[in-house]
Amino acid sequence: MLDRIDINCDMGESFGAYKLGRDEEVMKYISSANIACGWHAGDPMVMEQTVRLAKQNGVAVGAHPGYPDLMGFGRRRMGLTLNEIENYILYQIGALYSFTKAHGVLLQHVKVHGALGNLAFVDVEVSEAIARATLRFGKELILVVYSGTIMVQAAVETAIRFVEEVYADRVYNPDGTLQSRRIAGSVIHDPERAASQALTMVREGYVVAHDGTRVKVKPETLCVHGDTPSAVAILQKIRDELKKASISVKPMGQ
Amino acid sequence: MLDRIDINCDMGESFGAYKLGRDEEVMKYISSANIACGWHAGDPMVMEQTVRLAKQNGVAVGAHPGYPDLMGFGRRRMGLTLNEIENYILYQIGALYSFTKAHGVLLQHVKVHGALGNLAFVDVEVSEAIARATLRFGKELILVVYSGTIMVQAAVETAIRFVEEVYADRVYNPDGTLQSRRIAGSVIHDPERAASQALTMVREGYVVAHDGTRVKVKPETLCVHGDTPSAVAILQKIRDELKKASISVKPMGQ
Amino acid sequence: MLDRIDINCDMGESFGAYKLGRDEEVMKYISSANIACGWHAGDPMVMEQTVRLAKQNGVAVGAHPGYPDLMGFGRRRMGLTLNEIENYILYQIGALYSFTKAHGVLLQHVKVHGALGNLAFVDVEVSEAIARATLRFGKELILVVYSGTIMVQAAVETAIRFVEEVYADRVYNPDGTLQSRRIAGSVIHDPERAASQALTMVREGYVVAHDGTRVKVKPETLCVHGDTPSAVAILQKIRDELKKASISVKPMGQ
Amino acid sequence: MLDRIDINCDMGESFGAYKLGRDEEVMKYISSANIACGWHAGDPMVMEQTVRLAKQNGVAVGAHPGYPDLMGFGRRRMGLTLNEIENYILYQIGALYSFTKAHGVLLQHVKVHGALGNLAFVDVEVSEAIARATLRFGKELILVVYSGTIMVQAAVETAIRFVEEVYADRVYNPDGTLQSRRIAGSVIHDPERAASQALTMVREGYVVAHDGTRVKVKPETLCVHGDTPSAVAILQKIRDELKKASISVKPMGQ
Repeated sequence: MLDRIDINCDMGESFGAYKLGRDEEVMKYISSANIACGWHAGDPMVMEQTVRLAKQNGVAVGAHPGYPDLMGFGRRRMGLTLNEIENYILYQIGALYSFTKAHGVLLQHVKVHGALGNLAFVDVEVSEAIARATLRFGKELILVVYSGTIMVQAAVETAIRFVEEVYADRVYNPDGTLQSRRIAGSVIHDPERAASQALTMVREGYVVAHDGTRVKVKPETLCVHGDTPSAVAILQKIRDELKKASISVKPMGQ
Repeated sequence: MLDRIDINCDMGESFGAYKLGRDEEVMKYISSANIACGWHAGDPMVMEQTVRLAKQNGVAVGAHPGYPDLMGFGRRRMGLTLNEIENYILYQIGALYSFTKAHGVLLQHVKVHGALGNLAFVDVEVSEAIARATLRFGKELILVVYSGTIMVQAAVETAIRFVEEVYADRVYNPDGTLQSRRIAGSVIHDPERAASQALTMVREGYVVAHDGTRVKVKPETLCVHGDTPSAVAILQKIRDELKKASISVKPMGQ
Repeated sequence: MLDRIDINCDMGESFGAYKLGRDEEVMKYISSANIACGWHAGDPMVMEQTVRLAKQNGVAVGAHPGYPDLMGFGRRRMGLTLNEIENYILYQIGALYSFTKAHGVLLQHVKVHGALGNLAFVDVEVSEAIARATLRFGKELILVVYSGTIMVQAAVETAIRFVEEVYADRVYNPDGTLQSRRIAGSVIHDPERAASQALTMVREGYVVAHDGTRVKVKPETLCVHGDTPSAVAILQKIRDELKKASISVKPMGQ
Repeated sequence: MLDRIDINCDMGESFGAYKLGRDEEVMKYISSANIACGWHAGDPMVMEQTVRLAKQNGVAVGAHPGYPDLMGFGRRRMGLTLNEIENYILYQIGALYSFTKAHGVLLQHVKVHGALGNLAFVDVEVSEAIARATLRFGKELILVVYSGTIMVQAAVETAIRFVEEVYADRVYNPDGTLQSRRIAGSVIHDPERAASQALTMVREGYVVAHDGTRVKVKPETLCVHGDTPSAVAILQKIRDELKKASISVKPMGQ
């Protein structure tokens, strides 16, 4: 049983005149922010403001690179070469790094966004390209990998720092993968249920899949989606329950 | 009289399937490369290859940020706020930094591209925003400023490292500014003449303007444009003449 | 005194995952929709849906071209040549035309967006380039010009169809220009006041400037901004007052 | 045996400061130009110039829409929905239509570019979405489909005008598909051989695959790639041989 956990959330997804998410509110409840790097979302003004906001809230900062597809919000698979994936990620990590450097905060981690992240779950070569990009930027960087997938294996083989991630607000399949969002009910909107799943994972090390199977997980960071209407309520409930259970919330890198 | 000088040139301006410039050849004759950062030109694959090429040739690497206007190659003025200019430059510096870090080379300098650079010559607030962006990334970074302009003043006031730049292949006005490219003959294509102008600046500290006036300059780095047909011939001639004059060619940061 | 007027509003400004404006609601109160064409806002999916929505509401469709600057929402001036302005507008008109053709509705008009529109108020050559682009697409197209400016003169000289536009929700200067948005109070949020200004313009042919001066206007289409919180309330009030005054609301092209 | 054939080639693939292809030369030898529409290549200035050039050479104009991926030149598959494919193509057709209208020439055809075109060969739903987009713009538009593939079936079912296309400079598989470019020798650079393949297809209605198999084809338009070093030589040779055989070269739509 763990006495601490990290909570991460995607932040900084606004772009120009377009506002997305409730970053000011959400930032109060999390310990690690995955900040978009201007390719699938975000721009330098948004990145500047989001790093500043994270710093003000004592939240650790990570890069959240994605496909060069703003129109598709990085959610559409693109046929990139492994070399392109590696260099595109490297570019985005550096772009965000500038703002952490300017604000005197650490660039703690990398978590890949959307369709590129999903591809990494099923394609070990893509996982390796992501791990390689992270390592090339610096061995101090932590890669967030989805618990129990081939991403873990790629991270181990590349000899990088990494943490395993679990989801508080998503329904699991018996094999440990996430149930597709296309299936109704795959995203958990009920704060009670999300908090219960989170606590079970952190305290007991398993999650109950949709068919009742207990799936072992290794929760080092807990992901909550910030763009759902119930995001803040879910985060509040999880924080309350973690507090009752004397489990502290701390950035993955501490 | 100087016994050393830096030669800088814009590099890495290709994009995707589009090739621009003769980087492989030009890189042999220069000591500092200004590498495009993916906004007005360049992309992560090109940046990776160009940093690699610079390293192989012992050429120091700098960031060459520009306007977010690939269609206009960064040559069209945009009505950005000072805050936008600062953060857009910071973003691009970091993006290139990634590739220098991955290749274990230093990010030596920053030189602003095209219409944004031209604006800095005449708008001290823009010059200050550029200097601020450079300083925020790190006080070790050198900003390239156009010799004798308000950019120098902005660099001094911001207390950053900087070097003054002169042009081998451009005609000067009596006030020390460059004669507009729109005036025929403003770009020098004759290697003899370009080399002669370069040597006079480095050895004597002045340049002869189009009306015969001697204008004082402080040449710390010499710019040659890489995208003209005569670029390689000009560079060869300059190197030959510098050698005869026992003036060595070294990166500005050494 | 007029017995009819057109009401136009900018529509279709969402982009990918980013939602902007309340198009479904606003569309009920207007007679002409200025639809973004994918450069400063909008994308083909949004354009398709917005043309469909306009058709369902019996609202006439116009193209709303802008600068190629999604990050700045077309609100930042760019140093384009007149030739670039002309061809960029032509491109965007055609892009929207596709969706009107697919839905069997007329492409009624062109209204230029943001900083490009503002530039046209003060630069007659830009106004002419805009008029030329409109005419080159087809002489049946109506250009919306800001009442009393040099845009009118350019439209007359280019011999195109045009209508003059007035603003219900903006404060006027005594010379007939709009008071800058940077001055507090320049945008009218009070439905009563906006409706009163609209009715005075339509019925009496003048507007009261901020200093009390009566400025003559020629209202052929009335612009209301759709992105303010009070937009729907303003539109409702204007429609109510127009109805009481027996002034019908019809597309400019009818 | 045919007494006439169309020759089509991709044109207008330059972008801003980036030049690609030898449009001025190639345009002399072809009868139909597939002009890029600003998404994977091309921009409004290039489109304007290319339509003008086609008109001057009596070459018919078609739209060459592709993926929204300038960095990848439209050669990387993207996970778009069918609805997105349809609307993205519609957008690009209209954008080019503007320039044909401005120049008083007909928009003759649509040919899909790169990875989107390749996807259409193997996915009938994608072929149908492309056919639907073409039909929605106008039933007079001709869709270019790759001879003998499911694109033909989709075009028939959608009841649109279409022509079947064969390749002069590509090696065929025995099943009528093109041998992958990744296999060395798949692109024919020898003018004699390309012209011989072209003539056999046009006169005899078959092509000899790499294993000697005779594959039946229905050549209504002959594609030659304009971006290879030997493009002009190949085109000259084909024109010479067609002339000797008394086969005229005419746009597909005449």
